[in-house]
Amino acid sequence: MSAKIPLSLESILAARNRVEGFVHRTPVLTCSYLDQLSGFKLFFKCENLQKTGSFKIRGALNAVTLLGNTHDTVVTHSSGNHAQALALAAKIKGLKAHIVMPNITTRIKKEAVHGYGADITECEPADKSRQEAAARVVQRLNGVFVSPANDFDIMAGQGTLALEMLEQVKDLDCIIAAVGGGGMISGVCVAAKSSRPGIKVIAAEPELADDCARSLAAGKLTPNKSTPDKLTIADGVRVSLGDKCWTVLQHYLDHVITVSEEQIVSAMRMVWERMKLIIEPSAAVPVAALLYKGDEVKRKYPQVNNIGVVLCGGNVDLEKLPWNKK
Amino acid sequence: MSAKIPLSLESILAARNRVEGFVHRTPVLTCSYLDQLSGFKLFFKCENLQKTGSFKIRGALNAVTLLGNTHDTVVTHSSGNHAQALALAAKIKGLKAHIVMPNITTRIKKEAVHGYGADITECEPADKSRQEAAARVVQRLNGVFVSPANDFDIMAGQGTLALEMLEQVKDLDCIIAAVGGGGMISGVCVAAKSSRPGIKVIAAEPELADDCARSLAAGKLTPNKSTPDKLTIADGVRVSLGDKCWTVLQHYLDHVITVSEEQIVSAMRMVWERMKLIIEPSAAVPVAALLYKGDEVKRKYPQVNNIGVVLCGGNVDLEKLPWNKK
Repeated sequence: MSAKIPLSLESILAARNRVEGFVHRTPVLTCSYLDQLSGFKLFFKCENLQKTGSFKIRGALNAVTLLGNTHDTVVTHSSGNHAQALALAAKIKGLKAHIVMPNITTRIKKEAVHGYGADITECEPADKSRQEAAARVVQRLNGVFVSPANDFDIMAGQGTLALEMLEQVKDLDCIIAAVGGGGMISGVCVAAKSSRPGIKVIAAEPELADDCARSLAAGKLTPNKSTPDKLTIADGVRVSLGDKCWTVLQHYLDHVITVSEEQIVSAMRMVWERMKLIIEPSAAVPVAALLYKGDEVKRKYPQVNNIGVVLCGGNVDLEKLPWNKK
Repeated sequence: MSAKIPLSLESILAARNRVEGFVHRTPVLTCSYLDQLSGFKLFFKCENLQKTGSFKIRGALNAVTLLGNTHDTVVTHSSGNHAQALALAAKIKGLKAHIVMPNITTRIKKEAVHGYGADITECEPADKSRQEAAARVVQRLNGVFVSPANDFDIMAGQGTLALEMLEQVKDLDCIIAAVGGGGMISGVCVAAKSSRPGIKVIAAEPELADDCARSLAAGKLTPNKSTPDKLTIADGVRVSLGDKCWTVLQHYLDHVITVSEEQIVSAMRMVWERMKLIIEPSAAVPVAALLYKGDEVKRKYPQVNNIGVVLCGGNVDLEKLPWNKK
């Protein structure tokens, strides 16, 4: 389609060669109860069972491998899954990782990053403080900044999960995944649509962080408010689409579905109870879309039946579950 | 070995033909963090991801299939995983299931049994009340009682999980699983030792329900006290070994490891946090054995390195997690 976009099936296949053997080929599971509730045949790609507890290791490892020997140290700011992923990717490639984390980050997330041998600098939680702190670390250590999503090497790495899904399930009509920064769904779009013409790719996002839906409707990149009135529980997808991801998504993405906070929590609980899988709220967003807004899919794409659902991660604080209110 | 035992590789292969297509071939997952902690290479057989949330569907479906058309109704008493398993097995084979459940059973467990179309009779929680209530139901409905463990057809069905493990992991030296009534570990013993000579099979059990360890030490079946001073959190393995299971285990079982309540809860939490798998306390018992008593294995079987760990089930009340004390 757009020859200008530096993301292709070839770059995703190359990423796969780089990450294979270092990341899990995560299982695809089914659940007859959720099939019955949704009216589709669902195939859950369990990236919550991926190393570091999310798909992010795929992109981080691809990007870090492509750096080669240009730098000794990789740097990012992240309170979440990209922090652990970059720490492990650096460890695998024999580099140092230095992660800027907001000072409100939970102990367990910091321990995981330390566990992979990375250094941590704490900063104030605001976006500006994080960026400035990371820029200072980059300069001080002569490091290189690795973005969590808005980078074509990251997108190519994340796209490898869609290649696996297409091999694991022969007749997928559609893939649905949560969208935040857009790195994963961009890779999924290109991998799936280049491999299997006619397959639909649908994004799901919280109503409280619906920049992808608004961007698609407006035909131009329309970020979330920098200080939203209320934060979505789906912390992994609070961030707005990156501009590079947008260049991919405006060409390839078929549809976006938004869901409420109640729908996210309810879908999350159903996956825990029925599938015995620990997923984080962001991973419940596409499940909620199919359970509560599945009619949108049926109306728009009546031929769609076999849907791949990306369960993007499983990093949650077990002591603060949304159904155990204080 | 003992020609008198009506449980063989042949009966387990036949069971496999009966259950295949109706039960999940559950994935085997690995976790480098737990490998590092234990000093072994561990392969987790995820029967928590099995239909009904535990391995019990394998045995129930084998036993119900073997009943053929002799009865319209199958009956059991169970507050737990066997109840759901028998309900689903009956549904698959077009029979009625009637389950006697203690009146303290949680709502969610009763809903699951109802969800599979089974009827429920409530009774007092004591063993005697349960047995009497089940006997009355059997008589009233001209039903047939299906035991949760102490039945060679049940054992053969459970043994199918070991056949899968041996195919999924080529070079297993050892399998470890929790023991309660003994149906599963009996099937695992016969399946594994008949297929792969030299493989070790180890049982794990709570110190608070250590009848298997005491039976093996005494060389004769030695049940738990009928009213123990303290109940183990691992509700799936509170019950004592059945006499038929004992005839198998006294020939085949290599070793038993007992673990404390604290060790069970700690291992359970590690699997939740690191593997993102919801397991019930019983499933954490063999994990605890390897993490806290692994030296017993290393001393006794220095050649053992690749260990298959059966995660037997994932049915827990999400509102009563052991690390969320009131």
